[in-house]
Amino acid sequence: MPRIRLDLAYDGGGFAGWAAQPGLRTCQGELERALTTVAREPVRVTVAGRTDAGVHASGQVAHADVPVAIAADAAERPQRLAHRLSRLAAPEGDLVVRAASVAPAGFDARFSAVSRSYRYRIVTGPADPLERRTAAHVPQALDVDAMRRTAAALVGLRDFAAFCKPREGATTIRELRAFSWAREGQLLTASLTADAFCHSMVRALVAACVRVGEGRLGLAQAVALLDERRRSSLTGLMPARGLTLVGVGYPADDELAAQAERARARRSAADLDA
Amino acid sequence: MPRIRLDLAYDGGGFAGWAAQPGLRTCQGELERALTTVAREPVRVTVAGRTDAGVHASGQVAHADVPVAIAADAAERPQRLAHRLSRLAAPEGDLVVRAASVAPAGFDARFSAVSRSYRYRIVTGPADPLERRTAAHVPQALDVDAMRRTAAALVGLRDFAAFCKPREGATTIRELRAFSWAREGQLLTASLTADAFCHSMVRALVAACVRVGEGRLGLAQAVALLDERRRSSLTGLMPARGLTLVGVGYPADDELAAQAERARARRSAADLDA
Repeated sequence: MPRIRLDLAYDGGGFAGWAAQPGLRTCQGELERALTTVAREPVRVTVAGRTDAGVHASGQVAHADVPVAIAADAAERPQRLAHRLSRLAAPEGDLVVRAASVAPAGFDARFSAVSRSYRYRIVTGPADPLERRTAAHVPQALDVDAMRRTAAALVGLRDFAAFCKPREGATTIRELRAFSWAREGQLLTASLTADAFCHSMVRALVAACVRVGEGRLGLAQAVALLDERRRSSLTGLMPARGLTLVGVGYPADDELAAQAERARARRSAADLDA
Repeated sequence: MPRIRLDLAYDGGGFAGWAAQPGLRTCQGELERALTTVAREPVRVTVAGRTDAGVHASGQVAHADVPVAIAADAAERPQRLAHRLSRLAAPEGDLVVRAASVAPAGFDARFSAVSRSYRYRIVTGPADPLERRTAAHVPQALDVDAMRRTAAALVGLRDFAAFCKPREGATTIRELRAFSWAREGQLLTASLTADAFCHSMVRALVAACVRVGEGRLGLAQAVALLDERRRSSLTGLMPARGLTLVGVGYPADDELAAQAERARARRSAADLDA
């Protein structure tokens, strides 16, 4: 079956996270229901970044293997297909298929992805009612310069186990490529990019910066948390509502096929070993 | 009774507008209920800009005449008073008293105001689920340069009756001091400042620009609407959710007293005339 790529945005507030769960409204569940309706057969969706309950996305990417007729729609009437899927998945407007397209050869939304970028927003000072669903609120003033230094000190290829909720068999060694803070009036925005993030890692990294910004933790202490290799009482966790997956990076189309070929070769070699 | 000034922000989505109405949740109604609870006697609130149902505010200003104890709180524990009023008025967090203070002599939130500033936001292209409560959505591309020229051509001291919902006895001659458009990716933001706006004026002015941006109306036609002096089928109206009152301008404190004195003198002269 041909594969399509879907670019997605959603307000996480009304979803119990990305991953389908029986009886709960989830992004995957609603999107698969919409695709299954359009395809008239069961369709499964694979996503670049499985977001937690309450986490938003403006640049999420997914793929699905679909009947030929749907792939033809994605090629010839992509806006119409995107609009139809959006309306079926979320008539409330809180999940939108921003674009639909035929996936390039070798494309896998999850395994082809070479980077994920997140944004975390914090309103400082008085609460902002227009941001109450899309930003955390920290009433006190924060030392943004100290937060910037902390973020910069955390960048690198490291074992981030101290900032990860443990997950069976998942590596916690990640390359945090960028972590910066911008201030615009009352609003602080963290921008983070890594090859991949482990579970709850962004919210824990941001919490460490906030604790430094509040003066509750020293920069050296925050960085030393890494050496613990597991979550401690000093590892905070910011609320989900401030977090948005803003983008996923992929290799160029011609590199995707080569990447998939290398992965196939590795699997074949592993089969021979076994 | 001493007068306090309250700086307010609200998400208009959950309110039937500013003005108190029996049986409806309104900003004025909830705020007066909170103040009455704190003061233990009925308190009335006067606001700079009475916003319609669904319209937001980040920089609304109100005043209230309150018992001495409340004014003392506003002087000595302003953050605590603001927080208490916010919690009482809107435990949901959709209306926030950002600041409380003792009003300077002669201050009247409505009659002292010398300017009001609004912002109108439009998402173009695919819908943005994170902006669905705070921006209008126009799927097609808009000619922003034509919208900028239209906005600039509408600035000035004019009779804006063609852009106002008629209100008994209210003047429609207003000085539109600034009207500009900014683009940031998919998001277009209009910024408008006037001495005051008549009812629905911002939403009608923005609609005229959007029609020009869509190519449905020429710039000259949009400006010629002014000459009609009343709303016509060509006068559009953008939805409330994209509109936010962002600020109110007041004279310096020492000028306020003089301004109030002049108003008193005018009223006395009018009394003598009568």
